Amino acid sequence: MANPRADRVRAVAALARASVRTRRGQFRVEGPQAVREAVRFAPELVRDVYLSVAAAQRYPEITDDASTAGVHTHLCSPDVLTAMSPDAQGVLAVARPDEAAAADLFSSGRPPQLLAALAQVRDPGNAGTVIRAADAAGADGVLLSAGSVDRHNPKVVRSTAGSLFHLPVIPGVDLAEATAAARSAGMQVLAADGAGQTGLDDADLARPTLWVFGNEAHGLGAAERELADAVVRIPIHGHAESLNLAMAATVCLYSSARALQAS
Amino acid sequence: MANPRADRVRAVAALARASVRTRRGQFRVEGPQAVREAVRFAPELVRDVYLSVAAAQRYPEITDDASTAGVHTHLCSPDVLTAMSPDAQGVLAVARPDEAAAADLFSSGRPPQLLAALAQVRDPGNAGTVIRAADAAGADGVLLSAGSVDRHNPKVVRSTAGSLFHLPVIPGVDLAEATAAARSAGMQVLAADGAGQTGLDDADLARPTLWVFGNEAHGLGAAERELADAVVRIPIHGHAESLNLAMAATVCLYSSARALQAS
Repeated sequence: MANPRADRVRAVAALARASVRTRRGQFRVEGPQAVREAVRFAPELVRDVYLSVAAAQRYPEITDDASTAGVHTHLCSPDVLTAMSPDAQGVLAVARPDEAAAADLFSSGRPPQLLAALAQVRDPGNAGTVIRAADAAGADGVLLSAGSVDRHNPKVVRSTAGSLFHLPVIPGVDLAEATAAARSAGMQVLAADGAGQTGLDDADLARPTLWVFGNEAHGLGAAERELADAVVRIPIHGHAESLNLAMAATVCLYSSARALQAS
Repeated sequence: MANPRADRVRAVAALARASVRTRRGQFRVEGPQAVREAVRFAPELVRDVYLSVAAAQRYPEITDDASTAGVHTHLCSPDVLTAMSPDAQGVLAVARPDEAAAADLFSSGRPPQLLAALAQVRDPGNAGTVIRAADAAGADGVLLSAGSVDRHNPKVVRSTAGSLFHLPVIPGVDLAEATAAARSAGMQVLAADGAGQTGLDDADLARPTLWVFGNEAHGLGAAERELADAVVRIPIHGHAESLNLAMAATVCLYSSARALQAS
């Protein structure tokens, strides 16, 4: 493809808008890292891959995995890729949503050991970074409450650095239902909050845990805190007021991962 | 002040440029959180505070602390503040650099327990977030190698959320000298790297530690790794390739803080 004004190019560019993503049931995956993880871990979701000639030569694993999975791969001019997205860096994919639901997490064989729930998190970079942290910590999934940022916002997808395709990331979750289901599956529910009564180092993290993290600006609401068995505070040893959401979630999830591994 | 074209307004706006900051020995502190921490924790560095009338009413603690410390406080029109910086949010200060040197960390009374060194870190948001994490973890200071981003870059200052004024942040550090000084002060030197030989959970963190963190894109160079007693890897339990620099530093510094508190 060489014409940046072609209908298909405009259709991909339009996926920057949430309303278009929802109507079409498609979203964009941008840049070599995210596309590589998509075709490797979730090729069944990938509809088309678009690469520049230079990117196809530089990232043969992408074209290999796409070809093995039978994904349509299109070589494009750099102009076409830039017209599709200014953040493509020579590689872009169009994918369809993973349809996994929260209930699937609790009904499949082994009960989950570690889950992260985001309550009303709005900033795409924060949400993506927490998804990446959950993946790195070995979590079984991430739940996004209704009212959270769209998991398919291009900036969320980029910030996950591919982790969106490594574990279930489930949107539109009712946190009251999810915390009840987690408890039925033998998990404790911990809410992270700077005003928590329990210090992180005093929490019993050697048990399967669903962590609830709140909005980056306002933290957790009273209703959300009440869903938890304990509200946990990360100790602040210096004069900082707090950690930001992504840092706090990373510390909590890694603390759980360490305790679960050791147990 | 009401005239956005006044010389003083232009002089503050010009501090966006590193060359101007260096020549004048001044830098900008933007937004209520950073200015509040500056006038509270380091009023001797603050030369002028500029506020809108609305901000002066909303943040009386800033005008109180500035007045107690004898800092010049100027009420300005919103236009003036926006002309000084688009990120002022109604409050801005001009400060002079803290002149502390790395040697001061090791010569003052109690030897340091926890330090973070950034090697060639270029991204302002990453550097600022690591400074914030170091503060929250109770570190005694942050060392920036020669070639790292300017600690007074407005985006670094903002990302520290005030932590820049809570602990010494020392620029232009020779890491070979600093690691030698740290060892003489009884500290171990640990480098964080995804390819490290020692897992974080296996490292002995109950000892005074200088952590060395590398560039966000390229990690640590061989010379920097050789300065360390051990190269430490954060375990990745899922499929993520890595954590980003700010997340990795937060996990390492908090792991040290926990072990040092428990010891």
